Amino acid sequence: MPENVTAAMLVIGDEILSGRTKDQNIGYVAEYLTNIGIDLMEVRIVADDMEDIASAVNALRARHTYVFTSGGIGPTHDDITAESISHAFGVPCTHHPEAMAFMEKHYAARGMEFTESRKRMARTPQGATLIDNPVSKAPGFKMDNVHTMAGVPKIMQAMMDSIAPTLRGGTRMISRAVDCGFGEGDVGGPLGVIQENHPETMIGSYPRFENGNYSTQIVVRGRDAEKVDAAVRDVDQMLEKLTA
Amino acid sequence: MPENVTAAMLVIGDEILSGRTKDQNIGYVAEYLTNIGIDLMEVRIVADDMEDIASAVNALRARHTYVFTSGGIGPTHDDITAESISHAFGVPCTHHPEAMAFMEKHYAARGMEFTESRKRMARTPQGATLIDNPVSKAPGFKMDNVHTMAGVPKIMQAMMDSIAPTLRGGTRMISRAVDCGFGEGDVGGPLGVIQENHPETMIGSYPRFENGNYSTQIVVRGRDAEKVDAAVRDVDQMLEKLTA
Repeated sequence: MPENVTAAMLVIGDEILSGRTKDQNIGYVAEYLTNIGIDLMEVRIVADDMEDIASAVNALRARHTYVFTSGGIGPTHDDITAESISHAFGVPCTHHPEAMAFMEKHYAARGMEFTESRKRMARTPQGATLIDNPVSKAPGFKMDNVHTMAGVPKIMQAMMDSIAPTLRGGTRMISRAVDCGFGEGDVGGPLGVIQENHPETMIGSYPRFENGNYSTQIVVRGRDAEKVDAAVRDVDQMLEKLTA
Repeated sequence: MPENVTAAMLVIGDEILSGRTKDQNIGYVAEYLTNIGIDLMEVRIVADDMEDIASAVNALRARHTYVFTSGGIGPTHDDITAESISHAFGVPCTHHPEAMAFMEKHYAARGMEFTESRKRMARTPQGATLIDNPVSKAPGFKMDNVHTMAGVPKIMQAMMDSIAPTLRGGTRMISRAVDCGFGEGDVGGPLGVIQENHPETMIGSYPRFENGNYSTQIVVRGRDAEKVDAAVRDVDQMLEKLTA
């Protein structure tokens, strides 16, 4: 039985919910995790609100191997992710000594003042370990199975690369796509039968609607290559029959 | 006291969680609702799983004025949104007579067979009302405060236009943005003070990181134009002081 490693993502920020900023992190993390054999099972987006963040973190961390958060770890008053995750874990939110040390050096080297605002970015839940930020120094942090990252896509992506080697990947999901010129209404019936005959695969169908015409992409996913291949053969046969 | 109308969105689909399809609906709905004075408070993305969908729908519909879902109402076996929402409401999922009637006509007029798969798209929770789909006929549906729409962006957008006139809008949120060349670490401290002095506005700051330089956009939001203006004046003054 292949191992199943699951994850959830929590996106934090009023600016995403107002539509002012379009999220670019969900799709990135989804694809990234799929590629290393971790199944992203659910995503939530919440406002910059301490209770909303904490209750989402607690719901998700109990249910999944890993939780990844993005957003709300900057230096301003509306960046409340560190406090909120501390609240979720019931620990104080404190300046992390290691982060304080290298951030102080970082700003000194640039002749920039290490303001109280910048010091906010060194705060983590007590007991957290740091996640390296090669782009702009201010770190993310890991508390138990919760990984907290920046919202700025370039920084989040760099943090994801810092985290990835520490993650336990599952058996990678194999995915094969078959395109066809039929609408879902034509392939839907036979596809349901194929799904029943191949219970260890997941068969999805994704309609496209372009220039007034429907076409469908059929995607077979599974952890066992032979079983995926067997289902794809049945899909191919089904399409041949429809074409005939 | 201005009225506060809140909403949640539920995106349904394995293909979003695997990263194979990048969601385009969240940002669209977020902006759309903001423009008609409805506050989007939370978003969830769940897999094509009946229990996951039903429990998310029940959590969200209890908490918000409106819930909007996208995805999973096509004709194939993996489209289980109608059953799942029926399950959430504890009612049977049945072929809606009105939908059956106009879809039958629609396919007959095109010389297409009204297959069992296509009939799946006429199913709704018992007691639901239909949401018009001017693009491809197969309707969405409204059950209590839950609006169920297609996942294909063009169709979802058309359904949103069908729904909008039926929604009770709140007082529209006013938003004013001030760009500055300072990093968040410089503006963070004074901005926290301004937020405290203007409790009926929400002041956010959004860092940009381009070509190795930080800049910050400061956004003041609120429902009362005068109060937003007053906060913006304080932001402008603060930036003048920093520049001096």
